[in-house]
Amino acid sequence: MLRTHTCGELRIPDIDKTVKLSGWVQRSRDMGGMTFIDLRDRYGITQLVFNMETHSELCKQARKLGREYVIQVEGIVAERSNKNSKMPTGDIEITAEKIVVLNQSKLPPFTIEDDTDGGEELRMKYRYLDLRRNPLRKAMELRHKMAITTRNYLDKQGFFDIETPYLIKSTPEGARDFIVPSRMSSNQFYALPQSPQTFKQLLMVAGYDRYYQIVKCFRDEDLRADRQPEFTQIDCEMAFVEQDDILDMFEGLTRHLFKEVKGVDVDQFPRMEYSDAMKYYGSDKPDIRFDMRFVELNDLAQNKGFAIFDQAELVVGINAVGLADYSRKQLDQLTDFVRKPQIGAKGLVYIKYDADGSFKSSVDKFYNTEDLQTIANRFEAKPGDLILILSGETDKVRKQLGNLRLEMGNRLELRNPNIFAPLWVVDFPLLEWDEENSRFHAMHHPFTSPKQEDIALLESDPAKVRANAYDLVINGVEIGGGSIRIHNRELQKLMFKHLGFTDEEAQAQFGFLMDAFEYGAPPHGGVAFGFDRITSLFGGSDSIRDYIAFPKNNSGRDVMIDTPSQVSQVQLDELMLNIVKFKK
Amino acid sequence: MLRTHTCGELRIPDIDKTVKLSGWVQRSRDMGGMTFIDLRDRYGITQLVFNMETHSELCKQARKLGREYVIQVEGIVAERSNKNSKMPTGDIEITAEKIVVLNQSKLPPFTIEDDTDGGEELRMKYRYLDLRRNPLRKAMELRHKMAITTRNYLDKQGFFDIETPYLIKSTPEGARDFIVPSRMSSNQFYALPQSPQTFKQLLMVAGYDRYYQIVKCFRDEDLRADRQPEFTQIDCEMAFVEQDDILDMFEGLTRHLFKEVKGVDVDQFPRMEYSDAMKYYGSDKPDIRFDMRFVELNDLAQNKGFAIFDQAELVVGINAVGLADYSRKQLDQLTDFVRKPQIGAKGLVYIKYDADGSFKSSVDKFYNTEDLQTIANRFEAKPGDLILILSGETDKVRKQLGNLRLEMGNRLELRNPNIFAPLWVVDFPLLEWDEENSRFHAMHHPFTSPKQEDIALLESDPAKVRANAYDLVINGVEIGGGSIRIHNRELQKLMFKHLGFTDEEAQAQFGFLMDAFEYGAPPHGGVAFGFDRITSLFGGSDSIRDYIAFPKNNSGRDVMIDTPSQVSQVQLDELMLNIVKFKK
Repeated sequence: MLRTHTCGELRIPDIDKTVKLSGWVQRSRDMGGMTFIDLRDRYGITQLVFNMETHSELCKQARKLGREYVIQVEGIVAERSNKNSKMPTGDIEITAEKIVVLNQSKLPPFTIEDDTDGGEELRMKYRYLDLRRNPLRKAMELRHKMAITTRNYLDKQGFFDIETPYLIKSTPEGARDFIVPSRMSSNQFYALPQSPQTFKQLLMVAGYDRYYQIVKCFRDEDLRADRQPEFTQIDCEMAFVEQDDILDMFEGLTRHLFKEVKGVDVDQFPRMEYSDAMKYYGSDKPDIRFDMRFVELNDLAQNKGFAIFDQAELVVGINAVGLADYSRKQLDQLTDFVRKPQIGAKGLVYIKYDADGSFKSSVDKFYNTEDLQTIANRFEAKPGDLILILSGETDKVRKQLGNLRLEMGNRLELRNPNIFAPLWVVDFPLLEWDEENSRFHAMHHPFTSPKQEDIALLESDPAKVRANAYDLVINGVEIGGGSIRIHNRELQKLMFKHLGFTDEEAQAQFGFLMDAFEYGAPPHGGVAFGFDRITSLFGGSDSIRDYIAFPKNNSGRDVMIDTPSQVSQVQLDELMLNIVKFKK
Repeated sequence: MLRTHTCGELRIPDIDKTVKLSGWVQRSRDMGGMTFIDLRDRYGITQLVFNMETHSELCKQARKLGREYVIQVEGIVAERSNKNSKMPTGDIEITAEKIVVLNQSKLPPFTIEDDTDGGEELRMKYRYLDLRRNPLRKAMELRHKMAITTRNYLDKQGFFDIETPYLIKSTPEGARDFIVPSRMSSNQFYALPQSPQTFKQLLMVAGYDRYYQIVKCFRDEDLRADRQPEFTQIDCEMAFVEQDDILDMFEGLTRHLFKEVKGVDVDQFPRMEYSDAMKYYGSDKPDIRFDMRFVELNDLAQNKGFAIFDQAELVVGINAVGLADYSRKQLDQLTDFVRKPQIGAKGLVYIKYDADGSFKSSVDKFYNTEDLQTIANRFEAKPGDLILILSGETDKVRKQLGNLRLEMGNRLELRNPNIFAPLWVVDFPLLEWDEENSRFHAMHHPFTSPKQEDIALLESDPAKVRANAYDLVINGVEIGGGSIRIHNRELQKLMFKHLGFTDEEAQAQFGFLMDAFEYGAPPHGGVAFGFDRITSLFGGSDSIRDYIAFPKNNSGRDVMIDTPSQVSQVQLDELMLNIVKFKK
């Protein structure tokens, strides 16, 4: 080893030891007769001292070292006269006796500091330098710890880590596949998995009963800020279970992660029906770190002469506690907020319940004080509170108010990233209507089982059918989801029929799974957690990119290695492919 | 849960408990008034008893259950009158009170038994049924245990599990890439990684210092029996190390696996130079479970009038201890063996050192008894031994004799799969001559560092340059290998030059890595173990396929899901690709 210790481990009891350290020059300072160098590695920083009087050649050599040079130093551990209590190694320093330059460094294009001066693109191009910075190093360490903690928990629960294939089959259901041309079978293709869904179900058919994998998945989607073409899932499946068994198991895992990785005890997770989540929070992933539940007002607000409310399918509001002193300008900002195209409300009605008990409202002329008091009472509002009301089509207005609720949560500082409020949302609809293609899609995926008592509705009112499907939501972020699966050929066939597959199409694409269901498939279900996302949530960040060692940019490009890129004609010829150029 | 216990856990102390089990009907037997069913799950088999006298309806129901039906049974644990000591649950049975058929099963296309009647293709098509068989279940369990044991060992040693990307860049060096067309960047492609080599080196540049990953790798090669287009590596890299540090670390891992997974203590691994491995075993992966080292005979065998030996570059043999009584027919079989095209020897010379001390040889007329005795002495042969000698070009004859040595090892039953003889082979050549393309290839890969003292030979005698490269060999199987890497731009450039890259080509393909070397790259090195292979070796098998849940066949095809397959024209159009059809 080119070191006896790391740069993070020496302490007072090590004084007088002769040690060898290796690492990077973080910074150096010349102070008259002395030169100080902060030597950095993954484990910390240790101060090196070079004395001009006693070791002048060595000191001169040290003064030539640039930032990010890699050096090996031999020396003696000494107590610092000027201790630094902020550094774990701050009580000691190394009196250097010898240095070896292991490698030089050009001046980095940005500073290797917690707050760097480098822009995002530059840091992506030099990702190997960005990864040297503390925040990213901590992110990688957190991710490692999340992974090994997850694995050991599931191992102890009897789960087998079983690898499923990456070269699988393209199926048009779901998102767009990345495909991989086959050379051995000309004109045929593999696809990269969007998830190991069918394989993990086959493992249940095969009797493995508790399966997990931390696995890469691939989706060729147009990328939003926080999406990656390749992402990682904690993918799990269990047989001989009912929904509650799965919720209990993975609530256990999540609580264990909070405890082991964050040192945080989290209460039992509440469970909320999808319909209540929409009704009270306007979202299928409510942030329940704060309450501010929706209050419906149709009976109180309609038939008072205010045409906008009278024409609305739903009048619904929230109580922003203590904000009655919002100014005209602040209220206008809120109106502008709900009118943004991505929110889409037409306007915002407010009722200020002033500290003196009086009411001011943007709809004063339609509602007398008694009306306003009745409304305020329904919100359990107190003097000093601000009631905000939207109206319109039920589904739309709920989503709009859900956005406003989050905005008010931010303004009231109710969304502390160090507080964790997990929640199971259950009883999702089985199907969702796809306006564009005028057909139903599986809300979760086509293998999700409908609730037994709702199966009859499949024919009469498909949108009403509830699924045995659930999501884990933490702080308003969807961490993962899953379902109890169909394990019966006939029901699976029926499901495909309702999704618009002919029997032939269903058999061609998923015949292997439906065939498997005929050979003793046990009842089973599972979940998949977004590993990038749960890690970034644990890290207190809402960007997954910092928690991925080598992420792609928003164009799906790795700017460091410069890919995707062209391949040779020889490669294309072997695959029997031609590139189509755009016609100008 | 649809069970209170698994089918593997009930014992005498559980007697009189009311339990619920779920599983598959392994077999059923009607014995007059009783019906017995063996119920199977991942954990074992438990006998169920149905009594026609006391529960006639239930018993009739049980008699209708077919093989592989999935049932749930409620009943009471009872002591067996007729205990079966071969089964862990053989002391008890369940007196059934109630059964629920969870799913029916068609008659499986082959028997779900340790020795099945199904052929390989049929079992591949119904892999989910084949995976129910004990040998495969044990293989999956072994693989899981190997993985979690590896992870915990490396975690304790300070390694971070860091995921590297799967959508990377195609480079023509090495094997053929699978490529993935990009939709967002038309006419450009990703490639699937043949290994995370460059990324793990960049992680060392980034200061992570101890990295590992159990990771899928991809090679689009024509498949031999024991190759898969996607395979799994234990991939590791360390910084601030020298070769011995890496050998010690991963010898530690391997010994830990032997101890934890197999309960076997293995001695320290010997280390053998590549040149010695070739000289004494004719292979860079010698099976050292048995000795039978090569003995060179040029000085003794040449110039005695036997033209074949006189013209040979090398005359070399082995001593097959105790086989002097081989018959003419057996000797002819050996001659046929070495003459097989895949071995390629022209003939075989034998010397029988008979039990009575006399010699018989196929070349009696050229060598007198004294000559033969001298040769036998060099082999340290004893009466009763059989000496086998080949001759020819040095490299070829060594490989031929290496094959014959393994054959004799088999015949002498010296290759017990339950004995493990690991070995480090070190000091591999840096380059190997590629006859077909008249150029040198990197024997390991282009990032392997030459030995410092051999660098001067790069210009004068490239084939003589030794690398800081090493392989772990167990029982003659290459488990993995690695090297100390180049960490300096100039040396990497020189290496690419010797591999026939222009500076421009090197920069275009590996510029990101060479650039990284200029920003403080530490000395580093690593290894990669073939995870499929080490697992199958631990399982006592030489076929990796049984240790992969969903393998491809020799045409790279998954016959269960039927892929690769055609994709839609819409998909190809989005990717701006055209298929080229063969012209007849």
